[in-house]
Amino acid sequence: MRQSQLFTKTLREAPKDEVSLNAQLLIRAGFVDKLMAGVYTYLPLGLRVLKKIQNIIREEIDAVGGQEVLMPALSPKENWEITGRWDGLDVLFKLAGTGDKEYALGASHEEVVTPLVQRFVKSYKDLPVAVYQIQNKFRNEPRAKSGLLRGREFNMKDLYSFHRDEADMDAYYETVSAAYSKIFQRCGLDAKIVEATGGTFSKFSHEFQVFTEHGEDDVYVCNKCGKNQNKELVTDLKCPYCGVEREIKKAIEVGNIFKLKTKYSAPFGFKYSAEDSGEKDVFMGCYGIGPSRVMGAIVEVGHDSGGIIWPESVAPFEIHLISLAKDEADIKLADEIYGKLIKSGKEVLYDDRAGVSAGAKFADSDLIGIPYRYVVSHKTLEQNSVEVKKRRAEEIDLVKI
Amino acid sequence: MRQSQLFTKTLREAPKDEVSLNAQLLIRAGFVDKLMAGVYTYLPLGLRVLKKIQNIIREEIDAVGGQEVLMPALSPKENWEITGRWDGLDVLFKLAGTGDKEYALGASHEEVVTPLVQRFVKSYKDLPVAVYQIQNKFRNEPRAKSGLLRGREFNMKDLYSFHRDEADMDAYYETVSAAYSKIFQRCGLDAKIVEATGGTFSKFSHEFQVFTEHGEDDVYVCNKCGKNQNKELVTDLKCPYCGVEREIKKAIEVGNIFKLKTKYSAPFGFKYSAEDSGEKDVFMGCYGIGPSRVMGAIVEVGHDSGGIIWPESVAPFEIHLISLAKDEADIKLADEIYGKLIKSGKEVLYDDRAGVSAGAKFADSDLIGIPYRYVVSHKTLEQNSVEVKKRRAEEIDLVKI
Repeated sequence: MRQSQLFTKTLREAPKDEVSLNAQLLIRAGFVDKLMAGVYTYLPLGLRVLKKIQNIIREEIDAVGGQEVLMPALSPKENWEITGRWDGLDVLFKLAGTGDKEYALGASHEEVVTPLVQRFVKSYKDLPVAVYQIQNKFRNEPRAKSGLLRGREFNMKDLYSFHRDEADMDAYYETVSAAYSKIFQRCGLDAKIVEATGGTFSKFSHEFQVFTEHGEDDVYVCNKCGKNQNKELVTDLKCPYCGVEREIKKAIEVGNIFKLKTKYSAPFGFKYSAEDSGEKDVFMGCYGIGPSRVMGAIVEVGHDSGGIIWPESVAPFEIHLISLAKDEADIKLADEIYGKLIKSGKEVLYDDRAGVSAGAKFADSDLIGIPYRYVVSHKTLEQNSVEVKKRRAEEIDLVKI
Repeated sequence: MRQSQLFTKTLREAPKDEVSLNAQLLIRAGFVDKLMAGVYTYLPLGLRVLKKIQNIIREEIDAVGGQEVLMPALSPKENWEITGRWDGLDVLFKLAGTGDKEYALGASHEEVVTPLVQRFVKSYKDLPVAVYQIQNKFRNEPRAKSGLLRGREFNMKDLYSFHRDEADMDAYYETVSAAYSKIFQRCGLDAKIVEATGGTFSKFSHEFQVFTEHGEDDVYVCNKCGKNQNKELVTDLKCPYCGVEREIKKAIEVGNIFKLKTKYSAPFGFKYSAEDSGEKDVFMGCYGIGPSRVMGAIVEVGHDSGGIIWPESVAPFEIHLISLAKDEADIKLADEIYGKLIKSGKEVLYDDRAGVSAGAKFADSDLIGIPYRYVVSHKTLEQNSVEVKKRRAEEIDLVKI
């Protein structure tokens, strides 16, 4: 893409009310725009990153048998009354429909997916089933000051699994846990599994946490046995597994998985005809990752004083081609290099802007954080070369075209 | 995909409260599920169709310079007060936030995109700009009885363009109009351009209408000069262009385009520094297509007594491979054919279900409506062949594997 065509620009400063590091950098670099607290627009660069994260998640969830659907955000009050979350979930957005109808905006989708799968699953032969979607969630968070880490509207991949018994649920839970580790690894994040409470979902859960100073969560880390616990679960500084004193680290939760068991299937009366005889309760699991939150976490752990440093797997482009060409012949050569890179299948942001200084172009490039910077100038073109620099590296290589 | 793994099933009957033909067929065939009036879940087959329609739209809008973004559904009351649509747009869903904050759910996005683009566009050098998104819209429709044709939550591609003057806006309007014709053609729809009023958007607009008996709109068709007008604009049965008596046809609106001029830029004070001197008003256009509505329209015009007939461009799969194999050796051969088709890059739904009769499989296949049906049975395998039938055709060809 030609940068001269991109309607967004880098900004010198983020809005004053934006206190989170991830949103400050993402706004300044032109990835997102803040509409209000906890509500952001994904600009062309940001949407490219978001889609890459979503696609990594999609590939790994497809690989563990997830079937993709798309549920609506609007859902009827009745479904939420059945589970007790119409009154029980304090972050639920409620709104009036036609007549005396009332709707909730999906904060999570157990109330929609459970009766949905119930309509198709009747027998043990129909189980197990795993259904997921990638869609925006709505939560009326009292504090939404952490940028993409805690949105009032945020992107979510939510997977729900349905099983004939607890053992099958347990086995699939481990499968998804392994898939999650792979997803975060592919996104360039070092996420650790942490024991936690289950909120309104279940008694216990596991979270995937990325350690970083700006994290919202406190995690008790045992350096001996390697087990981690969220503060909310902790009664003692000592590790309950091996007894040694633990360290407390700040962390960002990037995913969580829950054994719902029959918590949502029971109120909907979701049973199946068993192989032996009679009807049995369906066991459920649910598994969430917020692609938008993952994007925020990547920025929190991947930046320097110059700006963002994207891992190659989720970077908006592979190459930032910066042209310092001034005369017509050089501009033509730079355009040709851009054309050749595109033709070879590379994703390239081409800084072809006229009237912008080399210094400003380099500063923008550091801020945007694309993994490889290629510079073409009269000097490099004379040597039939391009200057190549990795975003993280100091050294610059002169590479023949 | 193996049909035995698909968690959805075809249904004998649609829900009794579903009166629209498109939703009845889409529900019975397992493409969508009805959560409540005007609100549907896209099931695996339906989501595949929706994504194909979205991708056709994305390609053609990218080709006319559209830059994809993703705006939130939640937006602050203040933005809607600036344009007068907080009180003026009767289908707007409103909800309470934290404190005394109030939000609207995006029924359209002029109130978000105008100040967004305003933050980046300062000079004539920054214009024109075209920004679009593909995202769910929310409208509290009093009547939502037309299935995917009129949703309370529905999928929308909305494009907004920004220009230095009316002439530039007019020229781009024609460019988008041509792109729209291409999109509908690629989706297998014969859409006609119809003059209409502009609703809360502008004085006049153009709609893209597909003629069909179950359409919600009445279009006055002039068979002499070829100009069409929406009933809402019509004062006389006679064509205002050539004076002949017109025919009235039912139609489904699948897209519409508006010259907004300064209707939204003016209230936001969106001006730019002009080339000559001083500040000038930005001119805007907006252009909508509902991919979910397009999906409904395709079903309304493409079906027979057996079920849906998808155009190849948006079909959930290219080939419905139906195995009537019973013994182990035949099942192995059928599996191999499936493997070969997948390997050659074909999108295949493989009906590998055991214990389902040939008749039931054929009926499901007609209902689902995939363009090509391949049947493998002991008989065809003996001849090293597959029976190939087009969904629309009567004849069956025996084709060597």
